[in-house]
Amino acid sequence: MTEFELINNFFTRRPKSRSVALGVGDDAALLVPTPGHHLAASVDMLVGGRHFFPDVDPESLGHKTLAVNLSDMAAMGATPRWALLAGALPDPDPQWLAAFARGLYALADAHGVDLVGGDTTRGPMNLCVTILGEVPAGQAITRAGARVGDDIYVSGQLGGAALAVAALSGWTVLDPAALAACRARLERPLPRVALGERLRGVATAMLDVSDGLTGDLGHVLAASKVGAVVDLASVPRSAVIAAKLAGVERALALSCLLAGGDDYELCFTAPPSASAQIAVIGADVGVPLTRVGVIGAAAGLVVRDEKGVPMTDLPLGFDHFRDDGA
Amino acid sequence: MTEFELINNFFTRRPKSRSVALGVGDDAALLVPTPGHHLAASVDMLVGGRHFFPDVDPESLGHKTLAVNLSDMAAMGATPRWALLAGALPDPDPQWLAAFARGLYALADAHGVDLVGGDTTRGPMNLCVTILGEVPAGQAITRAGARVGDDIYVSGQLGGAALAVAALSGWTVLDPAALAACRARLERPLPRVALGERLRGVATAMLDVSDGLTGDLGHVLAASKVGAVVDLASVPRSAVIAAKLAGVERALALSCLLAGGDDYELCFTAPPSASAQIAVIGADVGVPLTRVGVIGAAAGLVVRDEKGVPMTDLPLGFDHFRDDGA
Repeated sequence: MTEFELINNFFTRRPKSRSVALGVGDDAALLVPTPGHHLAASVDMLVGGRHFFPDVDPESLGHKTLAVNLSDMAAMGATPRWALLAGALPDPDPQWLAAFARGLYALADAHGVDLVGGDTTRGPMNLCVTILGEVPAGQAITRAGARVGDDIYVSGQLGGAALAVAALSGWTVLDPAALAACRARLERPLPRVALGERLRGVATAMLDVSDGLTGDLGHVLAASKVGAVVDLASVPRSAVIAAKLAGVERALALSCLLAGGDDYELCFTAPPSASAQIAVIGADVGVPLTRVGVIGAAAGLVVRDEKGVPMTDLPLGFDHFRDDGA
Repeated sequence: MTEFELINNFFTRRPKSRSVALGVGDDAALLVPTPGHHLAASVDMLVGGRHFFPDVDPESLGHKTLAVNLSDMAAMGATPRWALLAGALPDPDPQWLAAFARGLYALADAHGVDLVGGDTTRGPMNLCVTILGEVPAGQAITRAGARVGDDIYVSGQLGGAALAVAALSGWTVLDPAALAACRARLERPLPRVALGERLRGVATAMLDVSDGLTGDLGHVLAASKVGAVVDLASVPRSAVIAAKLAGVERALALSCLLAGGDDYELCFTAPPSASAQIAVIGADVGVPLTRVGVIGAAAGLVVRDEKGVPMTDLPLGFDHFRDDGA
């Protein structure tokens, strides 16, 4: 099977949106931007053995490869429209590719996203997706808009994906039901696209928690030139992480909850006057939204433990060049 | 040095164009499309040891990484505007990255392209660029417009880059001046952006020759549902390839000339009535344009040798999954 046949077989489905004037198969796709909108563009690269386990279910991998990019659109309040996929594969296996494509297209269809570009080559496993979205001009939610006095919110629960990595790496033990729940967070993250769109005009700053809450919130603080106080007790977590936090595995649980990436929840700030509106939005989109702290003028991030005492040893955010883990 | 510092140091230069509302550093860049234009989007992945020699000069690699993508824009008649870069590196070396960034930005600046997104991670060397460009709606030049009777043109000369690969792989010997000239074609290809733009409304079909003339022209024929006759004698080549064609290395020279990729010249079709206009365009942009054949109704590609006899053993185009070469 040649490269071109591979691509033809799995990644040249006819576009569904009329915004695609020309899809995969020429030197470039031709897309029709919506007047009055800005184009949001982001790229993510996933390396085999580093960002995912080499034996991961390919359908889940197809899902996740796109999900992490949709999450970047959600984090801007943008609507994802088009995706381009480049992949290096050590060996083209049609069954593997069919499952990967199934997972990717299922999520793309759920969000009305067309795959409009592809490049496939032989090489160590590497998946690179560029996502393009649209947002009404001037309404994107960046990291730089947090203001002193704003509340800090987190969607869903944090730490589940990191706990799955810990369990799959043999660093902790989970019962089968808990492992399955955490693996779903790791392998099938649900990008909060509808939430991001609804937060236009409401949230003052936003990003997705891909590298851990403390590290990612730090990016908001730096971009917005503010500080923050977060209460550990209010950071939303599963019962499994809550149990480990109270026991001998507290350090591991803290690391998952505060510095664990891969949950792809949204963290955003909004003035206290928006709290009722935010509750309505959370109910509408079916995602719990939890206030975890407040933006302050004093630089830096303070996390207070369950007794209100500032923590001195915050776990570090994930860094691809510092960390050797998966 | 952490991932974020790496990115900050080398790839977060302030955008030069007012079409960038927000550059690198948030969850996504925000771009301002030009009204009345389509967006052209394409992605290319370069794998270390496969698409480039691992010890290649990093500044040249930075140039080439962007050049192959600009060539895709040229091939559509689009104007490149924005690029997103994702890279996996086995080990972040600041000197290497500085040189790579220098090569990439020099070419970006020469074409008014802003780098608006980046993702850097540890892993086997892999460089993935997504290029975004613009073309007036309805004026893009696809592969599907070739008509019976159209002339077939090639820009510049073909085969030089492939000959450099052959020499660097030890399959042939070149004198130092010839090797330097071929290496420049391989490592510093000049994307024909100005030519592509000028061919709007003139060329009926176009692509860039990245995998070899016969294979790439085959894509035009398939998309346009036509055939072609090409005369080997008219395919533009350097004196070095001409000499080898006439000698014992004829097979190698044929392979370079007809099936060698990486030259990133344009191949396009146009009606005979446009020949004078095409000559003017070639002179204006300073690129030789050579008529190499004609589009016909009979399916398939016929290449006639120097005696006018159809060749039976056409060398194959490069295929990443069939070929084990660099």
